[in-house]
Amino acid sequence: MTVEFQTWPQSAARLIAVAGGRAPADLVIKGGTWVNVHTRELLPNSDIAIADGRFAYCGPDASHCIGDATQVIHADGRYMIPGLCDAHMHIESGMLTPAEFARAVIPHGTTTMFTDPHEIANVLGLRGVRLMHDEALLQPINIFTQMPSCAPSAPGLETTGHEITPDDVAEAMVWPGIVGLGEMMNFPGVIHGDAKMLAEIAATQEAGKTVGGHYASPDLGPDFHAYAAGGPADDHEGTSEADAMARVRQGMRAMMRLGSAWYDVESQITAVTEKGLDSRSFILCTDDCHSGTLVNDGHMNRVVRHAIDCGCNPVVALQMATINTATHFGLERDLGSIAPGRRADLILTSDLKTLPIEQVIARGVTVAEHGQISVDCPHLAWPDDARSTVHLGKDLQADDFNIPAPDGANTVTAKVIGVVENQAPTKALTAELSVEDGLVELDEAADICQIALVERHRGTGQVINGFVSGFGYRGPMAIASTVAHDSHHMIVVGTSRDDMARAANRLGEVGGGITVWQNGQELALVELPIAGLMSDAPATEVAAKADQMVAAMRACGCTLNNAYMQHSLLALVVIPELRISDLGLVDVTKFEITDLFEKAPA
Amino acid sequence: MTVEFQTWPQSAARLIAVAGGRAPADLVIKGGTWVNVHTRELLPNSDIAIADGRFAYCGPDASHCIGDATQVIHADGRYMIPGLCDAHMHIESGMLTPAEFARAVIPHGTTTMFTDPHEIANVLGLRGVRLMHDEALLQPINIFTQMPSCAPSAPGLETTGHEITPDDVAEAMVWPGIVGLGEMMNFPGVIHGDAKMLAEIAATQEAGKTVGGHYASPDLGPDFHAYAAGGPADDHEGTSEADAMARVRQGMRAMMRLGSAWYDVESQITAVTEKGLDSRSFILCTDDCHSGTLVNDGHMNRVVRHAIDCGCNPVVALQMATINTATHFGLERDLGSIAPGRRADLILTSDLKTLPIEQVIARGVTVAEHGQISVDCPHLAWPDDARSTVHLGKDLQADDFNIPAPDGANTVTAKVIGVVENQAPTKALTAELSVEDGLVELDEAADICQIALVERHRGTGQVINGFVSGFGYRGPMAIASTVAHDSHHMIVVGTSRDDMARAANRLGEVGGGITVWQNGQELALVELPIAGLMSDAPATEVAAKADQMVAAMRACGCTLNNAYMQHSLLALVVIPELRISDLGLVDVTKFEITDLFEKAPA
Repeated sequence: MTVEFQTWPQSAARLIAVAGGRAPADLVIKGGTWVNVHTRELLPNSDIAIADGRFAYCGPDASHCIGDATQVIHADGRYMIPGLCDAHMHIESGMLTPAEFARAVIPHGTTTMFTDPHEIANVLGLRGVRLMHDEALLQPINIFTQMPSCAPSAPGLETTGHEITPDDVAEAMVWPGIVGLGEMMNFPGVIHGDAKMLAEIAATQEAGKTVGGHYASPDLGPDFHAYAAGGPADDHEGTSEADAMARVRQGMRAMMRLGSAWYDVESQITAVTEKGLDSRSFILCTDDCHSGTLVNDGHMNRVVRHAIDCGCNPVVALQMATINTATHFGLERDLGSIAPGRRADLILTSDLKTLPIEQVIARGVTVAEHGQISVDCPHLAWPDDARSTVHLGKDLQADDFNIPAPDGANTVTAKVIGVVENQAPTKALTAELSVEDGLVELDEAADICQIALVERHRGTGQVINGFVSGFGYRGPMAIASTVAHDSHHMIVVGTSRDDMARAANRLGEVGGGITVWQNGQELALVELPIAGLMSDAPATEVAAKADQMVAAMRACGCTLNNAYMQHSLLALVVIPELRISDLGLVDVTKFEITDLFEKAPA
Repeated sequence: MTVEFQTWPQSAARLIAVAGGRAPADLVIKGGTWVNVHTRELLPNSDIAIADGRFAYCGPDASHCIGDATQVIHADGRYMIPGLCDAHMHIESGMLTPAEFARAVIPHGTTTMFTDPHEIANVLGLRGVRLMHDEALLQPINIFTQMPSCAPSAPGLETTGHEITPDDVAEAMVWPGIVGLGEMMNFPGVIHGDAKMLAEIAATQEAGKTVGGHYASPDLGPDFHAYAAGGPADDHEGTSEADAMARVRQGMRAMMRLGSAWYDVESQITAVTEKGLDSRSFILCTDDCHSGTLVNDGHMNRVVRHAIDCGCNPVVALQMATINTATHFGLERDLGSIAPGRRADLILTSDLKTLPIEQVIARGVTVAEHGQISVDCPHLAWPDDARSTVHLGKDLQADDFNIPAPDGANTVTAKVIGVVENQAPTKALTAELSVEDGLVELDEAADICQIALVERHRGTGQVINGFVSGFGYRGPMAIASTVAHDSHHMIVVGTSRDDMARAANRLGEVGGGITVWQNGQELALVELPIAGLMSDAPATEVAAKADQMVAAMRACGCTLNNAYMQHSLLALVVIPELRISDLGLVDVTKFEITDLFEKAPA
């Protein structure tokens, strides 16, 4: 599955011969300014020679490395910077396969990604991780895989398509593209010494690999220290300067995110720019980028520019996206700098502050120039079972979304998931709802519509129903999505049970994605046939369809910022206060299943 | 063989419980100033909790970690610094076994050493390396082994007791204490793509371990770049600021030495203190320390103090002897800082600049206080074959040191090894020497005495004779040593063939070491019974005997600085210009065996 690519020792004899002037290089770049992320220097009038996809010579004059067949690029004084590394990210967030994600980010200068295929792990288990890993290794850039650690994220509160076990983790550690354990989100588990979580961490540490962290709490007291003592080596959940400083003091790397909806760089980078901490333990990442961000705004180049705009020295910002990342993952002898032996991943740019990505070279090959990709990103032959993961078990009917009232009730006090604009936590609301023909009715005037969690992994035909508020939907409509963090069943929100059934069935028909219905008509469809999470169409297409989806949600009355993200997080039963799962309504303040209706006072 | 010591994952459950306040620590240090080598901060009023020999909690208040049985130390505001690491060194240079070396350096605050047992490898091969490795793992501090790479150092010009092969290297890479490949001294071999050298580097890189470098040339042109392209990850042979900068730009670590006779810190550290290079790639080490230095001056504490005296920020200097080193060897999650999960190696000191080593804790145990060691350093039961390595094959006679003149000659023009004070290279001199009874005579007035290389590994009884100048010996005397870099036969220098025979036989009798004879009487003896290189007596004893040996050399007329080191290097056939080996006199400008006598002009 792996693209043929020689290791340093396999190429050493040739690299030595090229550097010593006894054999010609494949490619020489002359006259650039070498941005040296080891020394933090800018070295003008530097030459670079490349052979077998690795740097052979980096220094003042590579004339002796040029033979008849050597390609020569004149940098004309431009900066030569190492290819950019994304230290933690989920490819599935782009709704793209690894190949299409790579195709989208290569023109932005990303040449290395550390990806945690946590979403597909919930759908297809270890097999899904392997498929992502295998497509990753086909790409012309470096895509390393972090083995997902937490599927399910909330054991006992949801049912995933498959589970990840410590044995799975141990098995994956010997795969060629595995670089460590994906974010250990079950931080309460670590803090309380959960045996399964500790076994996963141990399997990773014993393999000499890096344990990713995820401590999503503002508490920096004993719980935080207990988490650090458990072994996670980094954390990208910090949001404040104090968070970043606390993590680095504990010997963890502070990963600072700028994703499509994450803005955690500006608030943390002052630990370096103002407090003067050693910058080596600070790393930049995206975590989650939508296809639209990749198409319109960029990827790691956007993050580095932002860090510079926040006052960071450009070379220090580049270190945070190159050598710091490589060192963290034990890969600094293989990538992350322009130095002999490393993969020849570099960018030519004429300005270090605005960082125009003029030419991108990966493993010695020009992969993009001025925003245009010039290389193939091969697709895996995704097997049928990965393309048919939406198992509804039956044709859903409007009746499946009925919410029967307690016997004899005329009104009920129902619990309602309250969406809060621009915040991940929901509010646990209650509402008085009327009953008609024994069924509880939604209250469009009060912005309360129905939500359903449709089981889609095992075809049980099970539908869990409830109420949600905050989207502002008006008139008969429904929206359904098989992107439904973290166990990725199907979330259907609507004001019309008929449209809810239509939307759900439509996703069953196309194999997953997002669909918006109004009054019996489909307004938008984003097909995500692979695991119900990803498309193998280009990012531009997926971004265009996602735009149509957002427009359709607006047409149904929704004015919420990031409404689709809010929709897809309604089953994320690790974030307070109220969520829905395939096991029922979940009180995430108590981590327990709860009744839909308030009990009448005794 | 390994001392029982739990890994982080083995101890994780307890570390978590201690940090979280649910279990008592073994030891708590309260109220210190935490020298944080991750952030480069001094954090006053900090507490540290230790369990299972590892840090469990490091933060503002460890009160919750204290139980009835917890030992509490009050730091009273003193600095808590990580235990010091020596990044590259040869234990044999101290003429001490690993146990006795550890005993000597623990009171100086050294808690980690990266040792290259290159000397014993020349005598006993892989088996010798394993014995050193095994005794290293018995110690209460961390002694990692770098697998020696170059035995022989000069293939074809000398015969070692045993050779190291690429298969040996691959075999050693799975031993528990092996951290990488020892200094790749055969830099011409690497530069010219020597298959054996590249195979050793490859075996190390494929094991994910660190390749030590040794580029002992001032040439920073294509040869230097070719060496860097071959894979060595560090180099301690730099002597100038330009050397250090060149190495770090190539993605190598610059290891700066302060040994007993190396003074390479002051001339290189300006790359950081004046040129402002990122300090993370700069590392401190000793390379070679005599027992006298350890007894009288210190070890890594001496190096750190010196770096500070050279103008380095104290915390940066400490980083160069702690976290920088740990990161280089891929061990930063296991040691090199005061942070959760790491081995609880630390020093209490009341001054960061003068660095008094007041209390040393290694793996959570107090191992020294105010210069007094408080822990056992266990000896290996060294097997008989390691204690009887001086095989002369016969009782040597004065006649064995006869130098017959060419037939009929009355005088000869002989090549003479010219020792140069305070320099490693020798001069290739010539001298007119008289002939008596067919034998060439030395010329005491011209400071020309005899030198002999006595084969001692295979008992061949072979003696190679020649002449040496520069020691200033007067009157009948001889000095013999089985420390004879790098193949460690026996070097005998003298003015009396009788004393030369006596000295050589004496070392055969005691199993190796150094002995000085004058007029038939032994003036001094340093017994080095283990491999003829090391004593298992305490450093104070060995240092006292070495002092006697120096005094004895002076009594014989020698006024040369570091005369014993010069003596022991006379067979080092990799350094110009003229040396002696078991294969003959060696012209190290041409790397070939040469005749003792100049040919008469035709």
